[in-house]
Amino acid sequence: MSSIRVTVWGENVHEQKSAVVRGLYPQGMHQSIADALNAAGGIAATTATLDQPDHGLPPGRLQETDVLIWWGHAAHGEVSDAVVDRVCDAVWSGMGAIFLHSAHFSKPFKRLMGTPCNLTWREAGERERLWLTSRNHPIAAGLPDHFELENEEMYGEPFGIPEPLETVFISWFQGGEVFRSGVTYKRGAGNVFYFRPGHETYPTYHDGNVQRVIANAVRWAHNPAARLADPNRAPNVPVETALEPIEQRGETLHAKGEAGFR
Amino acid sequence: MSSIRVTVWGENVHEQKSAVVRGLYPQGMHQSIADALNAAGGIAATTATLDQPDHGLPPGRLQETDVLIWWGHAAHGEVSDAVVDRVCDAVWSGMGAIFLHSAHFSKPFKRLMGTPCNLTWREAGERERLWLTSRNHPIAAGLPDHFELENEEMYGEPFGIPEPLETVFISWFQGGEVFRSGVTYKRGAGNVFYFRPGHETYPTYHDGNVQRVIANAVRWAHNPAARLADPNRAPNVPVETALEPIEQRGETLHAKGEAGFR
Amino acid sequence: MSSIRVTVWGENVHEQKSAVVRGLYPQGMHQSIADALNAAGGIAATTATLDQPDHGLPPGRLQETDVLIWWGHAAHGEVSDAVVDRVCDAVWSGMGAIFLHSAHFSKPFKRLMGTPCNLTWREAGERERLWLTSRNHPIAAGLPDHFELENEEMYGEPFGIPEPLETVFISWFQGGEVFRSGVTYKRGAGNVFYFRPGHETYPTYHDGNVQRVIANAVRWAHNPAARLADPNRAPNVPVETALEPIEQRGETLHAKGEAGFR
Amino acid sequence: MSSIRVTVWGENVHEQKSAVVRGLYPQGMHQSIADALNAAGGIAATTATLDQPDHGLPPGRLQETDVLIWWGHAAHGEVSDAVVDRVCDAVWSGMGAIFLHSAHFSKPFKRLMGTPCNLTWREAGERERLWLTSRNHPIAAGLPDHFELENEEMYGEPFGIPEPLETVFISWFQGGEVFRSGVTYKRGAGNVFYFRPGHETYPTYHDGNVQRVIANAVRWAHNPAARLADPNRAPNVPVETALEPIEQRGETLHAKGEAGFR
Repeated sequence: MSSIRVTVWGENVHEQKSAVVRGLYPQGMHQSIADALNAAGGIAATTATLDQPDHGLPPGRLQETDVLIWWGHAAHGEVSDAVVDRVCDAVWSGMGAIFLHSAHFSKPFKRLMGTPCNLTWREAGERERLWLTSRNHPIAAGLPDHFELENEEMYGEPFGIPEPLETVFISWFQGGEVFRSGVTYKRGAGNVFYFRPGHETYPTYHDGNVQRVIANAVRWAHNPAARLADPNRAPNVPVETALEPIEQRGETLHAKGEAGFR
Repeated sequence: MSSIRVTVWGENVHEQKSAVVRGLYPQGMHQSIADALNAAGGIAATTATLDQPDHGLPPGRLQETDVLIWWGHAAHGEVSDAVVDRVCDAVWSGMGAIFLHSAHFSKPFKRLMGTPCNLTWREAGERERLWLTSRNHPIAAGLPDHFELENEEMYGEPFGIPEPLETVFISWFQGGEVFRSGVTYKRGAGNVFYFRPGHETYPTYHDGNVQRVIANAVRWAHNPAARLADPNRAPNVPVETALEPIEQRGETLHAKGEAGFR
Repeated sequence: MSSIRVTVWGENVHEQKSAVVRGLYPQGMHQSIADALNAAGGIAATTATLDQPDHGLPPGRLQETDVLIWWGHAAHGEVSDAVVDRVCDAVWSGMGAIFLHSAHFSKPFKRLMGTPCNLTWREAGERERLWLTSRNHPIAAGLPDHFELENEEMYGEPFGIPEPLETVFISWFQGGEVFRSGVTYKRGAGNVFYFRPGHETYPTYHDGNVQRVIANAVRWAHNPAARLADPNRAPNVPVETALEPIEQRGETLHAKGEAGFR
Repeated sequence: MSSIRVTVWGENVHEQKSAVVRGLYPQGMHQSIADALNAAGGIAATTATLDQPDHGLPPGRLQETDVLIWWGHAAHGEVSDAVVDRVCDAVWSGMGAIFLHSAHFSKPFKRLMGTPCNLTWREAGERERLWLTSRNHPIAAGLPDHFELENEEMYGEPFGIPEPLETVFISWFQGGEVFRSGVTYKRGAGNVFYFRPGHETYPTYHDGNVQRVIANAVRWAHNPAARLADPNRAPNVPVETALEPIEQRGETLHAKGEAGFR
């Protein structure tokens, strides 16, 4: 079996502006995440960033990406709508997508969810403890029933997402909040996972449990089926080719062979 | 209990261009739907159309709408993005929304679903039979286990929607297809229902069972709670006001009191 | 509109054995819950207990019960299977059911869930804070985004339930755990809600927020439709009465008019 | 990667009594299903039948079964409750389970669903067409958007199951009904799939598409994680070992170290 091809998309803004972030992630958070995936086995991860042409995601790149990982925070608004459309089309065609931490407010995640994706937050370096709700879920493979991150940003409920297909993790925060921190969705032919941890001023993506969740999620999100050629296609089925014999009846709007309205 | 305030939004294009449609719905499909709702009891329905300023949906109108019904087909692309944003914000704040038939491809429905919302179709006036899957569901109140529409457009699976909260109706078509024709969602604080029947060249909205489903759906979608003031709000919770006593630790990105990135 | 008829079923064991419990609930927990419901408006609540004939739930009683509330802890095993069958049949026919706290391990809840319904627990009188995840959900009507119970038993994830239809509340515990403390299901034609708080050695059912959740849940679970006559019916549809004309083909097992196997 | 170990459980009653069934499946339906799985690659399938001691499912057998397939029809009532308990415990521990056709009324399926699992039916050898609703779902790998079975028993909605995690297939029937014919669930740590086709008087299990669905479902249901030792365990977490430091407060029912009630 060939490797799962992952593209880790990083905004790469705070790594340039903040000495703290650069100190934790000298090659960028995206590169740290990609390095951990490449060490996990069976995964071939590369990176793309906002400042590259097409934000590093020209059409061909997504065609060759089995699973896209997205981390953004300070510059959601700078992501072009063309790239957002391209990412959504790729997901609907079968590409997996994993959104990390502050990507809850990224354009592609909000577009795929259809909801505000809002939450409460506090940057206090408090303790977060993630609890598994769904035992033996593939995204939790090899993990204990709970694990801790000693310093994290707090995200609190209500989290403005649609009811998930599955709630895999729920976080406890030292300051008194809870959060659905690992949730799955299917959008078109693509699997989508949101995973909460990963504030840029803490070493979260160096944590072994976090790395394991992301690698597990890549394997879960990967769909080996051939990508759909056009996920938006809405074909007419002519009367003559109906699976059961029928005859045209009543009035029509569409001339024969005409395309539908969109 | 005061009446549920419904706005029936109609594209009102084919009613102007097609003698067939005008013959079936002399005052427009939107008016026929509103008339049936006003006769159902406990509902006060008015209409709005594409050709009006703001498509008939200025901000104040949605504030006073408990449930919005949407029918569009030929002119989805002419609906302004500002109105789409306004509709989505209203749904997320608690307004109910019902999308009918070809509104599967309307901008607000696609935005709320986060998926292509595509399907197969055939305009042959064939028989459709809707089956109830969820007995005693409030949207099916007073309906038999199945009912028929002798002439309808066919919509076929795969239907490009997210897995519904509940699948209430599934349609059988004479030509051999099936379709999830009544599905529920929650988006933010708003209840959303999609209902399949209603091609404009057939008298579907004069059918008693169809009228009953729509009236039931209005009652189901109506949320009597006060509308959320800002459904996109993502408030910071300062360390000093944390529910459990914590102290600031570690590095920070945000200066005290600063708003979050979006 | 007539009142919603509620039966509050209480095990009534610890009220007899424990002076602590009797001190908090002199007439029994079931009576305290019923009293609060009767004061809420639009609800007519009575009680039934384990020690009564048929555990207070003869067939006629469930026929006249719109919503059943169940609290049990020490004597789950003493509930007769006949009564469990009767309760499940009533739920499947359209009766609402609300299971409180330690009723997670009651026979009817386990039967309706199809899962172990297990959890971790600690009786330490610690602080519980319930967070709302689904804004404007009818079960949360009139409640703030969070509320606290200063002394409660801890229940922790993983909670062995099926993925809920909706997760309405999630609890934070002082000792470090989280729990899905308000979850909805539909079973047959009946609405089911599980609500976590209510350990018998604390005054939980005297708390205004808890009382409000239970009253809201009664209104949410109540299905005004007529109860199904037989929720287990699996009728044969003879070829002669098929909705579309078909002819008998191939081999058969069943003689004409014969009942199906069960 | 070692093979997935499948046990195909067959009732093996009609194969003995009916010449028609024996003619179609000389070694029994269970053996035909196992043969097809063994030819599919990566699967090692064996069989078990009702007439064997412990119905062929002693405890050790389920320990060594990754995925159990169940077909029953005429003798659901003869399956011992001890074996039903054992099957449910195995599913909750992580064993996959696939229920075929008339197994909708089998004891373990009803127990795992928590609902009546009833439907309407007609044995007329009519045409069934299965439509895929969820493109690129692993259970539909390699299948077209629809496929037909020329002669099948009809099962019609309303189907008395809980809202599925995913609805993968919906069937169209010649006589006018529809049915959710492929639905997924998770119960405890185990994946569950129900697949409708397979009436014993037709050659359904010799059909290539049907065989492919079952093999796909085996791969989907297989959970490579170690089986849970006790899926019903509800451990106490002593105050002294709480993850966050807390002190015992308030009144207690349980003496220190005492097991919980069940």
